[in-house]
Amino acid sequence: MSSQLRLAVDAMGGDLGPRSVVPACIRFLKKFPQAELKLFGPSAQLQNLIDDERQPRLASRLEIVPCEQVITQSCNPLQAVRHKRDSSMACALQSVASGEVQAMVTSGNTGALLALSRNILGNIEGVRKPALGKALPTERGFCYLLDLGANIDCSAEDLLQFARMGIEAQRIHTGRRNLAVALLNIGAEPHKGTEEIRRAAELFEADPKIHYAGFVEGHDIFTGVVDVVVCDGLMGNVAMKSAEGVIRLMGQKVFTIEKKGAFKRFFGQLAIKLLRKWRTQVEPARYNGACFLGVRGNVIKSHGGASSEAFYRAMITAKECAEADLAAKVGRAMAEAEWNRAMDKS
Amino acid sequence: MSSQLRLAVDAMGGDLGPRSVVPACIRFLKKFPQAELKLFGPSAQLQNLIDDERQPRLASRLEIVPCEQVITQSCNPLQAVRHKRDSSMACALQSVASGEVQAMVTSGNTGALLALSRNILGNIEGVRKPALGKALPTERGFCYLLDLGANIDCSAEDLLQFARMGIEAQRIHTGRRNLAVALLNIGAEPHKGTEEIRRAAELFEADPKIHYAGFVEGHDIFTGVVDVVVCDGLMGNVAMKSAEGVIRLMGQKVFTIEKKGAFKRFFGQLAIKLLRKWRTQVEPARYNGACFLGVRGNVIKSHGGASSEAFYRAMITAKECAEADLAAKVGRAMAEAEWNRAMDKS
Repeated sequence: MSSQLRLAVDAMGGDLGPRSVVPACIRFLKKFPQAELKLFGPSAQLQNLIDDERQPRLASRLEIVPCEQVITQSCNPLQAVRHKRDSSMACALQSVASGEVQAMVTSGNTGALLALSRNILGNIEGVRKPALGKALPTERGFCYLLDLGANIDCSAEDLLQFARMGIEAQRIHTGRRNLAVALLNIGAEPHKGTEEIRRAAELFEADPKIHYAGFVEGHDIFTGVVDVVVCDGLMGNVAMKSAEGVIRLMGQKVFTIEKKGAFKRFFGQLAIKLLRKWRTQVEPARYNGACFLGVRGNVIKSHGGASSEAFYRAMITAKECAEADLAAKVGRAMAEAEWNRAMDKS
Repeated sequence: MSSQLRLAVDAMGGDLGPRSVVPACIRFLKKFPQAELKLFGPSAQLQNLIDDERQPRLASRLEIVPCEQVITQSCNPLQAVRHKRDSSMACALQSVASGEVQAMVTSGNTGALLALSRNILGNIEGVRKPALGKALPTERGFCYLLDLGANIDCSAEDLLQFARMGIEAQRIHTGRRNLAVALLNIGAEPHKGTEEIRRAAELFEADPKIHYAGFVEGHDIFTGVVDVVVCDGLMGNVAMKSAEGVIRLMGQKVFTIEKKGAFKRFFGQLAIKLLRKWRTQVEPARYNGACFLGVRGNVIKSHGGASSEAFYRAMITAKECAEADLAAKVGRAMAEAEWNRAMDKS
C-alpha cells in the first residue's frame, strides 16, 4: 500500500495560493518517499516556485498538470459547475474520479469545491447530503465534528446520515470501535432545541449502529465526553470558527503582554517557548483538513488562510484518508442493510 | 444615583448555588459602599453562610428574603411559570417588577428565567422576542453578541430587533455611538446562509439607525472588526460555548505541560503567573453576565457553572445595567418612530 500513495493537490485558492501549497508539497515528498503528487495550476508560476526550492530529486514524484483557469473566492457554486470545468480544482477532482490519485487537497473556495465534488465525483449511493467533517482536539483525544458548513438546512434523516459517516471517519482517525455520538444543541435537556434536532435524537436512539450519548453543548466538543458530534452546517461552522477565533485572540493577548514592561518581558522570554508549545497543541493549523464525506472519492478541504505548515497538515489528513480509503468505507457503511432499513422507516 | 443602587440576587441555582453567590455578595458590598442587596433563598442556609463570613457590618445592606421553593436545572419553562411562582428566582423578578430593585442576577435555569421574566416583567412594547446578549472580549475591545440562546426560531424581523437592542447595550458598555453591526453567517459572501439571514441583511441595510457591516463568520466575533454581532439563539449559543470550551481546553493543556519533566517544570513555574494573566484576559469568568434584553426590567443571567469570582463579575454587569437603566434605554430605542416604520414595512 505504501508504494501506492498518489495525491492530487490544487495549487490555487486560499489566501496564499501556491506560496503555501508548493513548500508544503516539497516537505511532504521529503517526508514520505513513497508518495507521488499531481499538482494542478498555472505551470509557469508553479515551476518558478519549485525551481526556487531547488529540489531536482523530488521532480520525478511531483507532476505539474497545467491548468490556467482558477476559481476565485467570489465564484459561486453554480458558476463553478457551469463555467470552471477546466480550473485547477475541477481537474484535481477529475483525477480522483478517474482513479489516478487516491485523494485530493485544496484550500480553495468551499462552495465551489462542494458543488464540483458532487458534480464530478457524485454522491455515494444512499447519501442525501455529503457533509464536511473534521477531528478537533479535546482534553482526552479527538472529537469528530460534522457538518462544518456544507449544508444549511438539515432534516433529522440528514443528521442521522452525518452520524454514520462521522463514525467511519472517526474510526479511521482514532482506530477505536465503540464511539459515543452526540447531537449539538443549546442544552442537554430533552426538550431543548429545534424540532429537527429532537427528532434526530429519536432516530439516533433507535439506530442499533449508533451509541447515542444525548445532546451536548458547544463546550462539550472540546472536553472529550463524546467521540462524534453531529449538527447542521450552520452550527458546525459557527462552532469551529468561533473556537479558532478565540485561539487567535489568545495568541494576540500573549503578544500584548510580552511587549509591556521590562520585568514582564524578562519572564515573557522564558515563558514564550512554553506558551508557543501550549498554543500549538490546540491551534487550528495543527488540525487542518476537513473531509468531504459522502462523495465517491477522498476530498480534503484545507483552511482558506492556511500557511505552508497548515497546508502540510491537510496533506497528512489526505494521506490518512487515502490509505484507509475513507470514501469506500463510508460507502460500505451506508450500504449496510440495517442502516437502510432505519432510513426507510423515516 | 450612586446612593440608590439596589440589586436582587437569586441565591439558588447554578452548580454551586449559595456557596458561590454569598461570597460574591459580601465582596460586592465591600467594594461598593452605596449598594444594597436583596438575597432570595432558603433563609437558614443563607444565614449560615453569611455568619461564616463574619460580616456583621454588611448585614444592614444585605437583606435576606426567605424563599424555600427552588427551581432545579431539570424544571422546564412551563413548569416554572405554572408552579414555581414562590421560587427564589420568581421572587427576585417580582422585586424588579415592583421597582424595589433596579436589576436582578441569577445563575439558575436559563429556560425558566426567560419564561418567568416574560411572564412577570412582560415584554417592552413592540418587542416580539426578548434576547440574551453579552459583550465578549476581542483583539480591540468588545463585541456584543446576541441572541445567546433565548430564541431558537428567529425571523429576519426578530434579528432586526436584536440588532437595535444590541446597539443600546453595547453603547452602554463601551460609551461609543457609531457602532458597526454584522450578521453571523457561514461566509461573508452575499449568497451565503439561510433565507432569513439574507432577508435580515436587506432589513439591516435599509435601516437608517443601523451601521450595517455585512456578514461575519464565527472567528470575526473575536477580532473586533465589528461592535455588535446578531444571530439566532442556536448559533449564538454554539458560538459562545465553543469559545468557552476551547479556552478551558487550553487551560488544561498548560497543566499537562507543567507536569512533564524537571526542566520544563522549572520554567513552567516562572511562566505560570504570566500564563494565568494571559488566560484571565479572555476567560469566560471575567466576562460573566448576559443581559436579557427586551423585557421591562434589568435581568442578568450568570453562567450556571459560575465560581464566586464569576458570579461577582455578573453582579458588576448588573450594576452597569442598573446604573445606565438599560431596560429603559432599550424601551426608548424600540419606541422610536423611524424604527417602527421600518418594522411596519416588513
